[in-house]
Amino acid sequence: MAPTVSPLAPAQFPDLPPIAGVKLATAAAGIRYPGRTDVLLALFDEGTAVAGVLTRSKCPSAPVDWCRAHLKGGKARALVVNSGNANAFTGKSGREAVKLTAEIAAQATGRKPAEMFLASTGVIGEPLDATKFTGVMDELVAGAAPGRWGDAAKAIMTTDTFPKGAAAIVRLGSTPVTICGIAKGAGMIAPDMATMLAFVFTDAPVSARLLQSLLKDGVADSFNAVTIDGDTSTSDTLLAFATGAAATRGAAPLTALSDTRLPAFRKGFDAVLANLAEQVARDGEGARKLVEVIVEGAVSKASARRIARSIANSPLVKTAIAGEDANWGRVVMAVGKAGEPADRDKLSIWFGGIRVAHKGERDGAYDEAAVSAVMQKPEITLKVALGLGRGRDRLLTCDLTKEYVAINGDYRS
Amino acid sequence: MAPTVSPLAPAQFPDLPPIAGVKLATAAAGIRYPGRTDVLLALFDEGTAVAGVLTRSKCPSAPVDWCRAHLKGGKARALVVNSGNANAFTGKSGREAVKLTAEIAAQATGRKPAEMFLASTGVIGEPLDATKFTGVMDELVAGAAPGRWGDAAKAIMTTDTFPKGAAAIVRLGSTPVTICGIAKGAGMIAPDMATMLAFVFTDAPVSARLLQSLLKDGVADSFNAVTIDGDTSTSDTLLAFATGAAATRGAAPLTALSDTRLPAFRKGFDAVLANLAEQVARDGEGARKLVEVIVEGAVSKASARRIARSIANSPLVKTAIAGEDANWGRVVMAVGKAGEPADRDKLSIWFGGIRVAHKGERDGAYDEAAVSAVMQKPEITLKVALGLGRGRDRLLTCDLTKEYVAINGDYRS
Repeated sequence: MAPTVSPLAPAQFPDLPPIAGVKLATAAAGIRYPGRTDVLLALFDEGTAVAGVLTRSKCPSAPVDWCRAHLKGGKARALVVNSGNANAFTGKSGREAVKLTAEIAAQATGRKPAEMFLASTGVIGEPLDATKFTGVMDELVAGAAPGRWGDAAKAIMTTDTFPKGAAAIVRLGSTPVTICGIAKGAGMIAPDMATMLAFVFTDAPVSARLLQSLLKDGVADSFNAVTIDGDTSTSDTLLAFATGAAATRGAAPLTALSDTRLPAFRKGFDAVLANLAEQVARDGEGARKLVEVIVEGAVSKASARRIARSIANSPLVKTAIAGEDANWGRVVMAVGKAGEPADRDKLSIWFGGIRVAHKGERDGAYDEAAVSAVMQKPEITLKVALGLGRGRDRLLTCDLTKEYVAINGDYRS
Repeated sequence: MAPTVSPLAPAQFPDLPPIAGVKLATAAAGIRYPGRTDVLLALFDEGTAVAGVLTRSKCPSAPVDWCRAHLKGGKARALVVNSGNANAFTGKSGREAVKLTAEIAAQATGRKPAEMFLASTGVIGEPLDATKFTGVMDELVAGAAPGRWGDAAKAIMTTDTFPKGAAAIVRLGSTPVTICGIAKGAGMIAPDMATMLAFVFTDAPVSARLLQSLLKDGVADSFNAVTIDGDTSTSDTLLAFATGAAATRGAAPLTALSDTRLPAFRKGFDAVLANLAEQVARDGEGARKLVEVIVEGAVSKASARRIARSIANSPLVKTAIAGEDANWGRVVMAVGKAGEPADRDKLSIWFGGIRVAHKGERDGAYDEAAVSAVMQKPEITLKVALGLGRGRDRLLTCDLTKEYVAINGDYRS
């Protein structure tokens, strides 16, 4: 199962600037994969605020439980991420592994375990041997250096076909601040599920409370607006770290929603989240098409979101797109099953800007050759207008191909 | 796309007895498929009661709208079903086609259009040329005869790989009565979605109101407990017809829920529904495994149903089963994402009776070879115990194979 790089991948890993107050190191701890790095350590200067959004799964992994408990403190000095083992559904040994990992990292950095943040991705139900971190932690701490984003993004990959990073530089008042992020997407390893991890870093002096607010707002239209297969991981983790190092260059603390500098910062922050989320969709398992689903004219944004999700998760819509078939009948089906207000006789549907159905009937005017050309493109926009209200939403997804089934079904654990 | 017969198909079409008061005929009207029958006419004697359960889609087909409007009358003299065209999302022309079909059938039978019941399955969004029924209706009426169940079941197929029928003979008091049913399942034709149609017939003198009650109760654990891909058709139609002919053999009318003869009748009726529903699951597109998902220990039956549905619709669980992989990690994921009460540390999971996870951890005692043998079977039971309450439910589904993607994606419309 050596995946070729997704045809939807960006041409190259972007040029991410260092963030003052963040040092990065990676190592090969031999957790599961031979011959590659599988541990990332990020060290943060004193005063770094942390915020997080975690999976809503009722069966979260041990590191998710750990993060949830320690986010309340709002302070971070290190982040330890491993790939190869998700430490999920591992019971008491999983909780012990998390505690031991935090202790190992705390000892090596001379800080408190409660300031160590943890994330794991990979096989589920296998005990995680945290003592493997002991052998590499000192080396990681000693070797940590600014700006090693590419190495960091690679160390957290599972079956991702490319490393994912994004950055923005914005002004906080008159001070330029930097926001960088890395993510791993819907990769799968025997016998495991997708695990979405993303980490965002900034030198802006944002308080933990405001950072949490920014993250919660920002995730709604970025990571929460992506679906590969409708399956939610036990391990989804998005953490944001603000070192505050830009304060030494004159940036006053950013603590209030009413701060007039906030909109510009939020714009950059949201752009990084959206960029990373899109890369996750571009690396959906077996994906050959990036699909933007737009629903407008719904009774509310929430209703539009549910209808968009029903379309984006429909196996019949996704297989049709894989077959380059502008199958609007299946879109009607997915709208109809969403359970949200919809009126068949007001429904219109576009593929790539071409209206194929209008007010409940096939649009007799559309040019089949033009639609066919649209469907052959690697990026397709599917728009539905309900004609009921002003609710609008947008999701990203990918097609459902035989490669998805092969990746997830063609092996035994 | 000539489908081979599902490996999960019954050995042969069952031997269905005739039902007094029901005559059947089929014809080739050339609606879409060349060289096969595509219209079914069922004629009912005077006094036949009708009940129905129809898709909850917000975008139902024109015949679904027609049935919904006329079920209120409770009386049926004919059923006309066509395959090849679903008459869905066809706007005003769809409504006119339905009306014309009913008028053609009413004229040929000398009855009222309101007593004609209609169902269509096949391509969506294509206008249905109802005048095609004119050419065959007289022939159908003239040729209608009792007991032609096999022909009837074949005429309503789309990409079903085998015709589906079931029967039960039960005693209504001391009078034997017969219940027969036919169904078509999750077939797909370019560029269309699955359409589930089922029709049940009995000579028992059941009132329309009680028949509706029986049908509504019976569907919950039969057709509503089957999922192939989570995609709900615009055309799902289940109709039941009771001719009452058994009254001539001494059966008194069955009109009240309190009738002591009801439980025995209900048992047979439910068995026919369950049998047909299981055959639909056995003919899921690309299916190689029939999967029974049992959830117990939930806080309620409704909660168990939602968790079972989350498991049964999970692409990751379904691809794992296709890969003969007892991937309980993905089952944990599907439980966790269902949004229902669940406690990771009380969760246990069985494949084919072998416990693979217990109280939130891998069950260290299970024999990998034994589980592997279970997963290679064509029928697999997946049980989850939540340990919270007494809620229990059961669903049938099938695996997700590359053939599913091929059937639904490997062609252009």
